[in-house]
Amino acid sequence: MEKKLILGVSSSPRKGANTDFLLTEALKAAEEFDYIETKSVYIRDYGIAPCNSCFSCCGDRAAEGDAGRACLFFQDGMDELYPLLKACAGLILASPVYFGTMNAQMKIFMDRTEGLLRYGKSKYQYALRNKVGGAIAIGGNRNAGQEATLQAMHYFFAIHDMVIVGSGPDQRPGCYLGGGATTHPEKGKVTNAVRNDELGLKSTKMLGKRVGEVLGMMNAG
Amino acid sequence: MEKKLILGVSSSPRKGANTDFLLTEALKAAEEFDYIETKSVYIRDYGIAPCNSCFSCCGDRAAEGDAGRACLFFQDGMDELYPLLKACAGLILASPVYFGTMNAQMKIFMDRTEGLLRYGKSKYQYALRNKVGGAIAIGGNRNAGQEATLQAMHYFFAIHDMVIVGSGPDQRPGCYLGGGATTHPEKGKVTNAVRNDELGLKSTKMLGKRVGEVLGMMNAG
Amino acid sequence: MEKKLILGVSSSPRKGANTDFLLTEALKAAEEFDYIETKSVYIRDYGIAPCNSCFSCCGDRAAEGDAGRACLFFQDGMDELYPLLKACAGLILASPVYFGTMNAQMKIFMDRTEGLLRYGKSKYQYALRNKVGGAIAIGGNRNAGQEATLQAMHYFFAIHDMVIVGSGPDQRPGCYLGGGATTHPEKGKVTNAVRNDELGLKSTKMLGKRVGEVLGMMNAG
Amino acid sequence: MEKKLILGVSSSPRKGANTDFLLTEALKAAEEFDYIETKSVYIRDYGIAPCNSCFSCCGDRAAEGDAGRACLFFQDGMDELYPLLKACAGLILASPVYFGTMNAQMKIFMDRTEGLLRYGKSKYQYALRNKVGGAIAIGGNRNAGQEATLQAMHYFFAIHDMVIVGSGPDQRPGCYLGGGATTHPEKGKVTNAVRNDELGLKSTKMLGKRVGEVLGMMNAG
Repeated sequence: MEKKLILGVSSSPRKGANTDFLLTEALKAAEEFDYIETKSVYIRDYGIAPCNSCFSCCGDRAAEGDAGRACLFFQDGMDELYPLLKACAGLILASPVYFGTMNAQMKIFMDRTEGLLRYGKSKYQYALRNKVGGAIAIGGNRNAGQEATLQAMHYFFAIHDMVIVGSGPDQRPGCYLGGGATTHPEKGKVTNAVRNDELGLKSTKMLGKRVGEVLGMMNAG
Repeated sequence: MEKKLILGVSSSPRKGANTDFLLTEALKAAEEFDYIETKSVYIRDYGIAPCNSCFSCCGDRAAEGDAGRACLFFQDGMDELYPLLKACAGLILASPVYFGTMNAQMKIFMDRTEGLLRYGKSKYQYALRNKVGGAIAIGGNRNAGQEATLQAMHYFFAIHDMVIVGSGPDQRPGCYLGGGATTHPEKGKVTNAVRNDELGLKSTKMLGKRVGEVLGMMNAG
Repeated sequence: MEKKLILGVSSSPRKGANTDFLLTEALKAAEEFDYIETKSVYIRDYGIAPCNSCFSCCGDRAAEGDAGRACLFFQDGMDELYPLLKACAGLILASPVYFGTMNAQMKIFMDRTEGLLRYGKSKYQYALRNKVGGAIAIGGNRNAGQEATLQAMHYFFAIHDMVIVGSGPDQRPGCYLGGGATTHPEKGKVTNAVRNDELGLKSTKMLGKRVGEVLGMMNAG
Repeated sequence: MEKKLILGVSSSPRKGANTDFLLTEALKAAEEFDYIETKSVYIRDYGIAPCNSCFSCCGDRAAEGDAGRACLFFQDGMDELYPLLKACAGLILASPVYFGTMNAQMKIFMDRTEGLLRYGKSKYQYALRNKVGGAIAIGGNRNAGQEATLQAMHYFFAIHDMVIVGSGPDQRPGCYLGGGATTHPEKGKVTNAVRNDELGLKSTKMLGKRVGEVLGMMNAG
């Protein structure tokens, strides 16, 4: 089987901290399938402006020329990410939980994918369609937004016509919707606290494996 | 201040097991306010049929006579619970998590409160309006429906025009939306496993205290 | 391609009313793929007791004999549904919205699938794994639980290790998570009101088609 | 009764468009109570950087001097908003729906209120505690994130130990969780489309009135 790419996206503002670590663990688990290759991107490395709702991505101008721009208003870090989003077969999003859902950094990234929807007019229209999506969330408290974050990421996947998977069939996963982790009892500021969260690591690795597994069953994606 | 009643409702099918225990802990915490009194009911002690969507509670016949029946179709255990729901000033719901949300027993109870809504025509119309609602959920896995259950209970409270509170202002609550507990690492069948869940107990007691506290601030309810 | 079965499950207590109608529309849309066949079941036609959390499905006795019983406690309508759940490749759930989420009838059905999970010990263990799930919700008000119902159904799918899809890639779907319909401005008691809900019908048909489409891409399921 | 302030916050990037309009309508409805006064702020008018998770708001330095800074890292538009958040008795958040939940602009604002939580060490600790929160969401499709946005805002309110209300007790509200509106059948880019959304306007006005009403019942807040 030709290699399929899983793109991992971390929205942590802190390099190498808990969220990045979980994303890496998930991708490593996916790579146990020999048909999977992975790539990680860290939103903090890309300057990305929030979508200002100009709708230019949905307008006729977006279809002109080589139709190579998913956003006509901004020229920024998203221009490097759009081709990766189009190229991948699977997408894993990993965010720390801030105020009960994904952090603003992840939301900025999400909002700038408008041109990849059915409404887009460039070559990026439907760029994520039929791809397999998995989600990872890590919170400073235990039951404190992980589920809500995962559900919000699933919503994003559904809007992009993706195929959504949870953490998969192993026994006692700890979290069903995806990777669900916590830094508790350490405080969130402890950047390696999640390494002690056995359940968080387990569900995160399962999620990565699950995305890989379902990609193996899909003819598209 | 006149005593205000908090009604606690447990939907566990298992007497004295984890859910019942948490409800008791929440109510005890609320009773630390001298103006609070509490009462617990266990749905398993009442035979309750699922709402069959006959809409008789919303019809003119519901307004006749002493208008004393919130449901005209069934005569069952709900007839004992309607007066308690009308009498209470606060309502705490406690459910085990089954398949990512409250169990069917709790949902059966909820669905049979249709006649207490704006749509009801009996004296029970608006019976829960302005009352303070708090929620407790306990799951066999760690991040496995607790949040979703609490949010679903909050939705019920919102539909009844109640005032919704989370687990309140103490430090490191573990769960913000209400009492969030787990029997993990024990299996759900271990009926006293939650006694070892420090965070679950903490957030549950906080939730009970919080319902009592906000009742102390409310002129209505 | 061998025919793949989509099982549709309606939890409406009212025969032939709005929920049943939507389910039929979704299944008809799926049948436009020649490799799809469908079957509808109506929970109201099966006497089903709520799960009483006996955990017998997870115990050793469940593995004995022909291991043919997914629930050892009750002998009821679920015994007819378990083989269908195992046989299908896709599952579409349709529920009216009661109090912001699925009705109790649907939840009773869901809770009784515990033995089909990773925890089950009979031949029904993992019965729904890798199957494609889609959801339909219809509410008496417009933004009044449809999304929450669809998300709760998706949670059920995730717990069963299913593959989750939304309403798919057509333009202006009205609802992304699945079929999202309302009887408004008619009241919920009007049993054919949804026939006038253009958006509800559109998203429901899209959901049916989408389940069929993704089944065509899956080697498993 | 002394006047109580409801602060309205709009996260639309588009001045005077649908979200702003709804917020104004909600605040006007609240002002029908003579004890209510209101103020609107528009996040687009304040340059606000996303929280970078430095945790300085939770550190000892935040308690020094006059303890007047809720965020020690950034000096930006939030410095003008923190005093308003502390001063208000009620808070109404209004966001357009982007990808199934609030837009990034609203999330940036939310994430920067970390120092107002229990974890903050400045005088802004607990700044929102016991205040009454209401939520408004408007989406370009009909059942397409309004509920999820409102629930995510409620989560924010719960984390801040606020008292949460829905749209209140009038008949046929269209949306129970708060103001739930849509620009459909117009496209989202039509900046006044919501004026034709009768149900959206109704639930939004109800939400405003409801926040005012519950503030009248609260001794605190």
